[in-house]
Amino acid sequence: MAARDERSAEERLIARYFAPLATAPGALGLGDDAAVLTPPPGCDLVLTTDGLIEGVHFMPHDPAGLIGGKALRINLSDLAAKGAGPVGFLLSIALPARIDRKWVANFAQGLGSDAASYGCPLLGGDTDRTPGPLSITIAAFGTVPHGRMVRRSTARAGDVVVVTGTIGDAALGLLKRKDGLLEKRWNLTDDQSSALANRYLLPQPRTALAKAVREHASAAMDVSDGLVGDLAKLCRASGVAAEIDVARVPLSNAARAALAADPALVDTILTGGDDYEILLTLPPRRLEALRAAALAAEVAISEIGRVVAGAGARFIRDGRALTFARPSYSHF
Amino acid sequence: MAARDERSAEERLIARYFAPLATAPGALGLGDDAAVLTPPPGCDLVLTTDGLIEGVHFMPHDPAGLIGGKALRINLSDLAAKGAGPVGFLLSIALPARIDRKWVANFAQGLGSDAASYGCPLLGGDTDRTPGPLSITIAAFGTVPHGRMVRRSTARAGDVVVVTGTIGDAALGLLKRKDGLLEKRWNLTDDQSSALANRYLLPQPRTALAKAVREHASAAMDVSDGLVGDLAKLCRASGVAAEIDVARVPLSNAARAALAADPALVDTILTGGDDYEILLTLPPRRLEALRAAALAAEVAISEIGRVVAGAGARFIRDGRALTFARPSYSHF
Repeated sequence: MAARDERSAEERLIARYFAPLATAPGALGLGDDAAVLTPPPGCDLVLTTDGLIEGVHFMPHDPAGLIGGKALRINLSDLAAKGAGPVGFLLSIALPARIDRKWVANFAQGLGSDAASYGCPLLGGDTDRTPGPLSITIAAFGTVPHGRMVRRSTARAGDVVVVTGTIGDAALGLLKRKDGLLEKRWNLTDDQSSALANRYLLPQPRTALAKAVREHASAAMDVSDGLVGDLAKLCRASGVAAEIDVARVPLSNAARAALAADPALVDTILTGGDDYEILLTLPPRRLEALRAAALAAEVAISEIGRVVAGAGARFIRDGRALTFARPSYSHF
Repeated sequence: MAARDERSAEERLIARYFAPLATAPGALGLGDDAAVLTPPPGCDLVLTTDGLIEGVHFMPHDPAGLIGGKALRINLSDLAAKGAGPVGFLLSIALPARIDRKWVANFAQGLGSDAASYGCPLLGGDTDRTPGPLSITIAAFGTVPHGRMVRRSTARAGDVVVVTGTIGDAALGLLKRKDGLLEKRWNLTDDQSSALANRYLLPQPRTALAKAVREHASAAMDVSDGLVGDLAKLCRASGVAAEIDVARVPLSNAARAALAADPALVDTILTGGDDYEILLTLPPRRLEALRAAALAAEVAISEIGRVVAGAGARFIRDGRALTFARPSYSHF
């Protein structure tokens, strides 16, 4: 009698829910040990990895589709900040026994929808059972012309400091979800309240601006651990200082409303993290070209300060530098 | 007053234990959001990801250095089976609060030692706290000349089936560690007993054979879920059948001793998994060249059967095909 050649439950799960996301030829339909990627001639590959753990980065009852989207988007944000266009990703997922097929279907739907719209197909992966929290690790890949990845370490005194989108929304959204009374205390409209919640659940990677970042930025990184801490990292890597005008840090209407109700929230806004915006520096003469590219890409940008000689990033309000209890998010 | 520019505890952990492993220039000393990799001209990149979860793939008290080595080696095994030489990896690690610096130091030492000896440097990563089990995900990258990645789906009737090393040791090692009485029941010498235990703890990726696999194999994959199940996958992907002579499946002295004491162990040996050997097929005329390359690479190879027309993989002993309760390891 022949050994059974039926596929295992693991193979069937992959074939049903994840193989449809593996649209790149090199993914081989997820039917091999590895994927193959032919880099475009003259290009470098940009590699990044970032994960989400249940109870740390999302809550057990968050919609599975949003978790799938967020897992990819936090990686796309890193690629965009490096000036790289996405080419694909590997997914590693550890599922507790209580997770049912419906959850997996919704997760794959959200992930697949973003993979398609950002042009970043699934290339391969690994699926495991875990006795612990659900966890998702993505390694994402992008390309830049050879030698053109934008780094953190190349800002220069005299450069302008620019940030995309708005800052602090996700951190406020997380704070609000932890304390149901804040929504009322902050006098938020329903729209404002859901805007903050959504920014936490589903970041908006600035993939559309990647090419302009590559062409104009002297240095860049994505803001994931808070603007204050991440700017400090960029300054440290570049051997420079920065002076930021807090009044020019872009805030959403919802964040403005919350800040008006509780001025102490400036700390949360500037250090809370999960922004997934691009922080970049560029020579002043490049600013007009970046503005035009940002307008074309439909990504808001704001000039918030200057790179200067020295060390440290100062956030100045009413002529005085702010101090922060915890400048940067750290897991440790 | 300036915002503090001291590094966070997370940054210090990375700088101290992991940055020394990031020897490739494109890793940027782990000081950026992403790594950059310049693929050699005319090459494809081969991408794979595989992880280890505490309580599933290793036990809490296993030596940290061996866990670090195993996490990389299981990925190197995939690359070797695809005919790819390693170029680097991304590490994503989720640490429970109880893990101390000493554990991290030992883990990084074991990982770094293997990264150096296999020529596969750390390119980047992600470090998180987790409320759950310790887990490690690696995405590893290799290169092959364009179009030359060896697939599962290209075996042809008439090909010879070959496997590297020995089969079943890791599965016996795992069984033995779960039941302390087996060592005595199997009449193992101390050396045999530790040989089985070591094969489970630290696989031996056949990186040295990658080039020969690429040059001679018609199809290949690594044996991680058991020889029976993995050969069934290869046959299914290739649209062929295979006939394996069980007597020719290579066994270590330790496995032979255990099998002599308990003939039912043939099931564990052939289906238990964690072998991390290469299963390959090749035209008979290529066998001599493969043998010479394997001898030069100091990797044992064994011819165990033939690819034939049809479907399914048959394991034949004394003229009859064996049947298996669970032909392949599956997490689901």
